[in-house]
Amino acid sequence: MKHISLLGATGSIGTQTLDVIRKHPNHFNLSSMSVGRNIELAIQQIHEFSPQLVSVQTRDDYEKLKLEIPNATKVVYGQEGLVEVATDPHSNILVNAVLGSVGLVPTLAAIEEGKAIAIANKETLVTAGHIVTKAANTYNVPLLPVDSEHSAIFQALNGEKINQVERLILTASGGSFRDRTRDQLIDVTVHEALNHPNWSMGAKITIDSATMMNKGLEVIEARWLFDIPYDKIDVVLHKESIIHSMVEYIDGSVIAQLGTPDMRVPIQYALTYPDRIDSISNERLHLWELGSLHFSKLDMERYRCMAFAYEAGRIGGTMPTVLNAANEVAVAAFLDNKLTFLEIENKIEQALERHQAISQPTLEEIISVDQETRAFIHSSIK
Amino acid sequence: MKHISLLGATGSIGTQTLDVIRKHPNHFNLSSMSVGRNIELAIQQIHEFSPQLVSVQTRDDYEKLKLEIPNATKVVYGQEGLVEVATDPHSNILVNAVLGSVGLVPTLAAIEEGKAIAIANKETLVTAGHIVTKAANTYNVPLLPVDSEHSAIFQALNGEKINQVERLILTASGGSFRDRTRDQLIDVTVHEALNHPNWSMGAKITIDSATMMNKGLEVIEARWLFDIPYDKIDVVLHKESIIHSMVEYIDGSVIAQLGTPDMRVPIQYALTYPDRIDSISNERLHLWELGSLHFSKLDMERYRCMAFAYEAGRIGGTMPTVLNAANEVAVAAFLDNKLTFLEIENKIEQALERHQAISQPTLEEIISVDQETRAFIHSSIK
Repeated sequence: MKHISLLGATGSIGTQTLDVIRKHPNHFNLSSMSVGRNIELAIQQIHEFSPQLVSVQTRDDYEKLKLEIPNATKVVYGQEGLVEVATDPHSNILVNAVLGSVGLVPTLAAIEEGKAIAIANKETLVTAGHIVTKAANTYNVPLLPVDSEHSAIFQALNGEKINQVERLILTASGGSFRDRTRDQLIDVTVHEALNHPNWSMGAKITIDSATMMNKGLEVIEARWLFDIPYDKIDVVLHKESIIHSMVEYIDGSVIAQLGTPDMRVPIQYALTYPDRIDSISNERLHLWELGSLHFSKLDMERYRCMAFAYEAGRIGGTMPTVLNAANEVAVAAFLDNKLTFLEIENKIEQALERHQAISQPTLEEIISVDQETRAFIHSSIK
Repeated sequence: MKHISLLGATGSIGTQTLDVIRKHPNHFNLSSMSVGRNIELAIQQIHEFSPQLVSVQTRDDYEKLKLEIPNATKVVYGQEGLVEVATDPHSNILVNAVLGSVGLVPTLAAIEEGKAIAIANKETLVTAGHIVTKAANTYNVPLLPVDSEHSAIFQALNGEKINQVERLILTASGGSFRDRTRDQLIDVTVHEALNHPNWSMGAKITIDSATMMNKGLEVIEARWLFDIPYDKIDVVLHKESIIHSMVEYIDGSVIAQLGTPDMRVPIQYALTYPDRIDSISNERLHLWELGSLHFSKLDMERYRCMAFAYEAGRIGGTMPTVLNAANEVAVAAFLDNKLTFLEIENKIEQALERHQAISQPTLEEIISVDQETRAFIHSSIK
């Protein structure tokens, strides 16, 4: 039985993690969770899973929630509440499924408690990969990827030696606008951007798929998760999202992980690794039903965010923090109709150009650069 | 340094095994080899690789060869010669790349000497899988697949547990006649049948690809190599031969091994397992250059040999021996223009129908059924 702490229970990955727990009550137990502002859903989840600890974002929600749930569940709130869930002494694995860089501090706290980390929060590795991987090594805890791409690579590395890897090959669906030229992106709407062809995901990550920043962040995440230089990380466009990613070895062999696009499969694998248990769904991959799989080369001119991500990753230090913070604020502004789609890229470019990277930054320096970048983008929009 | 005994040095797999040895002189040494009737090529190989022991088929060739090669190479001949090469005390791995069931006895002899077996000879497992796998278990030696399909499955099983496998999925190119209906197969020529779209292989295996018997034999081989029941072994048509085969796990994940169609990659992997060393070729798989991969369902009516193989495999005992022996003689007769292409299937069907399977046959019973089947097919052709 694995006892799980879940950060971000009401989000897309959070609810799918609860699907996995619901399907396998003999394998998993929800020990504690954090939620954002969706208190109605949180109340339902608490009644169903009876966690002994729940954290909410605000004092107001804390007061509201306490009236609605059994006394057996302790309620906490704020950043301290997140850390309390992450360090829950009753759990042995933390699923970090919050959005944005808010997941960083709780994750480090959980690592120091020796918990395995199932990591769905990209920003934790993008902004502080050097700190998080060092801590994981020091405390000898596994970092288990939840993203379908990183899970695929993790699976393709099973039983293999990292020094015999030639390159990692991340697949990218191309997102909701993959069939459009740059000229056709000028006046796209939020509604169009949210219409992802393959995956059902949250709004922010769906926009990141359309700009390809999602894949850029994944490249940086892969660099840290697998300790592989950027020159050995490639991206190939694969519109069906059936091959979730691949590893090429020095002998020319390529090992790939395939499956139907269902995030619950990699979530479950992170929770059961190194074992596998029954599928959460009855849907099986039948390649003959699909008929064909397509691949094409990634064009860095078409997807400028990919170029920004490789550049920020190679410079390193605080540069990926700027990339990520500028992107978060710009995407939120796009979703709020305050920026056009292509202006997201322009804002990120401006933020990267004005920043002098600090190498080997401390957590404090990362947080400071993160805040400063967000303030810059906010002020440049208003 | 691995010291290699190679059965079948002048054949297609044999010469490609020597390519691998030539490319990696620091990893591999040819200790001993056997050849068929191609003495001219054998002489060149002996001069290049200086094995200390060579076996030929006939006394005549033995006399001829001795005059042409250095005294440092001992020459032997016949079935005893094959066994002497297989049990060569200077080697630690046997590559069994002979054609037909002649590889069986030497392979068992090598297993008893504790050598790892790189197995490219299907018939060894098809006709005596229960004996060979039992011996390999008893003497604790690995059976390392050389076929691209079984190598792919072997690689896709790396670090995984066999009881968490849902099914094996062998890919099949469909062979030289994959785009033809059965009606269009009535008067095909030997020349047309030998024109395989993807792989450069020997004549017998190329015909077996066209009839799909090759895949049928591979299904039986997979049953023994991986100890998986027939109900969990599927075949999917994949005309590009890029995904070499796959393993589906109980959680819905599918792990695949991909590569350019180059037999030297799986040969090398069998020799280096569990490690990988540099690629023998500079050619790398770039999926975007291919553009797309295609898959379709296998039609058992179109490919009757597949149905025969599953049936013979499920009945078990001596039935796969009959399948294999009838096929060998029928294919040889087709190559000799004594049978039409579709008559190959008819001969196999006749042989299977008249045979009463012996379960758990001894080696002697297998050899006897093999000879009796060959005699039956021969007599039915003349």
